[in-house]
Amino acid sequence: MNTTFSNHPSQDLATFAAELSFAQIPAPVLRRAEDLMLDWLGSVLAAKSARPVRSIQRFAEMMGPAQGPSEVLISRRTTSPVFAALVNAAASHYVEQDDVHNGSVFHPAAVVFAPALATAQALGASGAQLLTAVVAGYEVGIRVGEFLGRSHYRTFHTTATAGTLAAAAAVGRLLDLSPAQMLHAFGSAGTQSAGVWEFLRDAADSKQLHCAHAAASGLMSAYLAKDGFTGAARVLEGAQGLGVGMSTDADASRLADGLGSRWTLAETSFKYHASCRHTHPAADALLQVMTKNKLAAGDIARVVTHVHQGAIDVLGRVVVPATVHQGKFSMGTVLGLIAVHGRAGLTEFDRDFVAAPVAEFRDKVVMELDSEVDTAYPARWIGKVTVNTADGRQFAGRVDEPKGDPGNTLSRAEIEDKMQRLTQYGEGASAEEAKALCERIWRLADAPQVGRWLG
Amino acid sequence: MNTTFSNHPSQDLATFAAELSFAQIPAPVLRRAEDLMLDWLGSVLAAKSARPVRSIQRFAEMMGPAQGPSEVLISRRTTSPVFAALVNAAASHYVEQDDVHNGSVFHPAAVVFAPALATAQALGASGAQLLTAVVAGYEVGIRVGEFLGRSHYRTFHTTATAGTLAAAAAVGRLLDLSPAQMLHAFGSAGTQSAGVWEFLRDAADSKQLHCAHAAASGLMSAYLAKDGFTGAARVLEGAQGLGVGMSTDADASRLADGLGSRWTLAETSFKYHASCRHTHPAADALLQVMTKNKLAAGDIARVVTHVHQGAIDVLGRVVVPATVHQGKFSMGTVLGLIAVHGRAGLTEFDRDFVAAPVAEFRDKVVMELDSEVDTAYPARWIGKVTVNTADGRQFAGRVDEPKGDPGNTLSRAEIEDKMQRLTQYGEGASAEEAKALCERIWRLADAPQVGRWLG
Repeated sequence: MNTTFSNHPSQDLATFAAELSFAQIPAPVLRRAEDLMLDWLGSVLAAKSARPVRSIQRFAEMMGPAQGPSEVLISRRTTSPVFAALVNAAASHYVEQDDVHNGSVFHPAAVVFAPALATAQALGASGAQLLTAVVAGYEVGIRVGEFLGRSHYRTFHTTATAGTLAAAAAVGRLLDLSPAQMLHAFGSAGTQSAGVWEFLRDAADSKQLHCAHAAASGLMSAYLAKDGFTGAARVLEGAQGLGVGMSTDADASRLADGLGSRWTLAETSFKYHASCRHTHPAADALLQVMTKNKLAAGDIARVVTHVHQGAIDVLGRVVVPATVHQGKFSMGTVLGLIAVHGRAGLTEFDRDFVAAPVAEFRDKVVMELDSEVDTAYPARWIGKVTVNTADGRQFAGRVDEPKGDPGNTLSRAEIEDKMQRLTQYGEGASAEEAKALCERIWRLADAPQVGRWLG
Repeated sequence: MNTTFSNHPSQDLATFAAELSFAQIPAPVLRRAEDLMLDWLGSVLAAKSARPVRSIQRFAEMMGPAQGPSEVLISRRTTSPVFAALVNAAASHYVEQDDVHNGSVFHPAAVVFAPALATAQALGASGAQLLTAVVAGYEVGIRVGEFLGRSHYRTFHTTATAGTLAAAAAVGRLLDLSPAQMLHAFGSAGTQSAGVWEFLRDAADSKQLHCAHAAASGLMSAYLAKDGFTGAARVLEGAQGLGVGMSTDADASRLADGLGSRWTLAETSFKYHASCRHTHPAADALLQVMTKNKLAAGDIARVVTHVHQGAIDVLGRVVVPATVHQGKFSMGTVLGLIAVHGRAGLTEFDRDFVAAPVAEFRDKVVMELDSEVDTAYPARWIGKVTVNTADGRQFAGRVDEPKGDPGNTLSRAEIEDKMQRLTQYGEGASAEEAKALCERIWRLADAPQVGRWLG
């Protein structure tokens, strides 16, 4: 891993983002960027009718132009880039099925794709230009998230804060900003960086606003920089910058870590199950046991999940879930859905989180602290289960990386399947339209123009 | 001073803002609100051609509707409320002649008037409704600034951060938000609260972006709340709120301090001279001596300014100013302009900051630390000078509050004069138009509709 050493790491990062070329990006990274883009589309279309997303859509319709070069995917209307970015970003994170970069605890898709797509459509950019911009956005946003660190995440929602810079980098690359202009865009984006976790206490709608704000503010920062508007050169690492103001363990060496050799986009995980991620390793291990041994839910008498302490802390409170959301934090419910349906997706949760066969299975599941699993966490999320059948057999299941992580990533067929399910769940597009979107994305690198995607 | 005691002070503040009525506001506070509004108009029109403001104007024209109910004062075009608020707010702070609340170190006009005017125009609101909204914005923003405290100001630009809530309160009052909706608007505004000082190091354009961002984000938060979008109930004082994230001395008791009895709007100061505020007390004291004793610049051989330590710290570095901006931090230059022209306005600085008679006077001025002045600071900014004439006389001048502070405020004639000068400086309106604006503002409380103000 190469590391750039300078006394101005955010300038190194801005220069990298401004100068990134399609030819320079390894093919596997480009393919993964396409995978993540399709995965993002599913999340957006799943949120078509979500109340908070609709509120932001109505605001955009009230305040923005009624037509324009950029597409609002959930309404199929067009408007100016900033409003398309605002609404599409608001939809990105709603069903919580979008991607995540573990090390930075940052959800890049939610803040990168919406402003990049809106800008690419406005500029008549090619698919290769859009992909290059998206990679720039991921590489910048993830490194800013790593820079801001764990202390930042205690109060601030990193997707919201690092998100403004990720969006600025992606849009800035499309606008062909010079390195100096890109640094100005970072300055303007950083000084609009915002978003605190306090909303969790009230289950308020802020998460959607955070993504919308990051996308729109970052886009604005890049457009302003193109027009000569200046920003702080060290908005991240300076003495009155974000690191000092919003973190106690900010690490400027992370900003330029491995630029050009380490592709953080390829470290990004897909979310496979629609549940709390702490349930995923055990869910995958149970599925492995059931598939390998051709077991049905009714064959199983007991499941012991061998977990890390964090799973017990987060999941231990929910025994019988009262809401779908609580169901996603119930290990027994998640494993029950896996056992009965072979999956724990949004549809299964909505329909069956307390259905009789699922509830019956739920009561057969226990969690036990496992020292190997606990020691490996959080670097590795090991899944271990012991399954006892009604006829007296015992099986051990184990996965070393949960489904969706880079070492156990989704195949294109699985990504298409997840996207189709999300789209149908939200009634965001027909199956035929979703299929056409898949084909469009798989051919994106060769598209002379990004064009309009729906409607 | 009444203080509301509850365990949810931001709810008290939101309830106050939502329920504030025109009838409840004392007449002197309303008159001061009109004064501040006219003063703000001068600042906006002075910035008509400023490069960073023009950049934000072009962004608004590219992204926003080409027509709408709200007026962009510097371009005389119309657009939707959010873009009119964005551009007018960007212009508010550029010439640094807008008002300031000393205790909160917060510039309320810059973030309150632009979104309030844009929304009032869109709703067809009356002058009384606009004034009520403006008072709500000042009362909320100043208290949020006081809540965030001194530690916040070290890294964050309070006008930017508290500004989102000030804007949300003003717009929310116009939208007739319920107390619960107003609290949601605060939650959405607070979680978009942003803006750090790092840009000062590069003299970057962020100050204009800060005002624009606060105005637009606050406006959006209020409109979303009206549509049912929810926010954190304790975004300010909660365990993962702004106080914890962006301050080490946040004081929740300030949020509801004296609601309904203490009118912080009336504590707001006008900026009279176009220089660093540390020069103002001495400038006023010199003017007093010269007026009273009918002295001309050429009569004076020496001026000793008796100052607080902070003035020496900030002003001591500039002896011979190289730029207009440095001139504003040169005590001798400021007093030279006062002595030669009787004022130190934007025009005088631009034209004469190194002109021969000003430079000659500059070299006659010294600063000396004064224990009485230093002890009184920062609660009181006392101005003391000793003036020696060429013919051997000596005069002492003293002002206990600099011109523009609440105890030594500007008359309406002085406010009109300042506004006319600012407008002519920026060529933002003709003298006749500026006069008509003055008359409009002085009659605003009786206007059935706010209407369009220019063009």
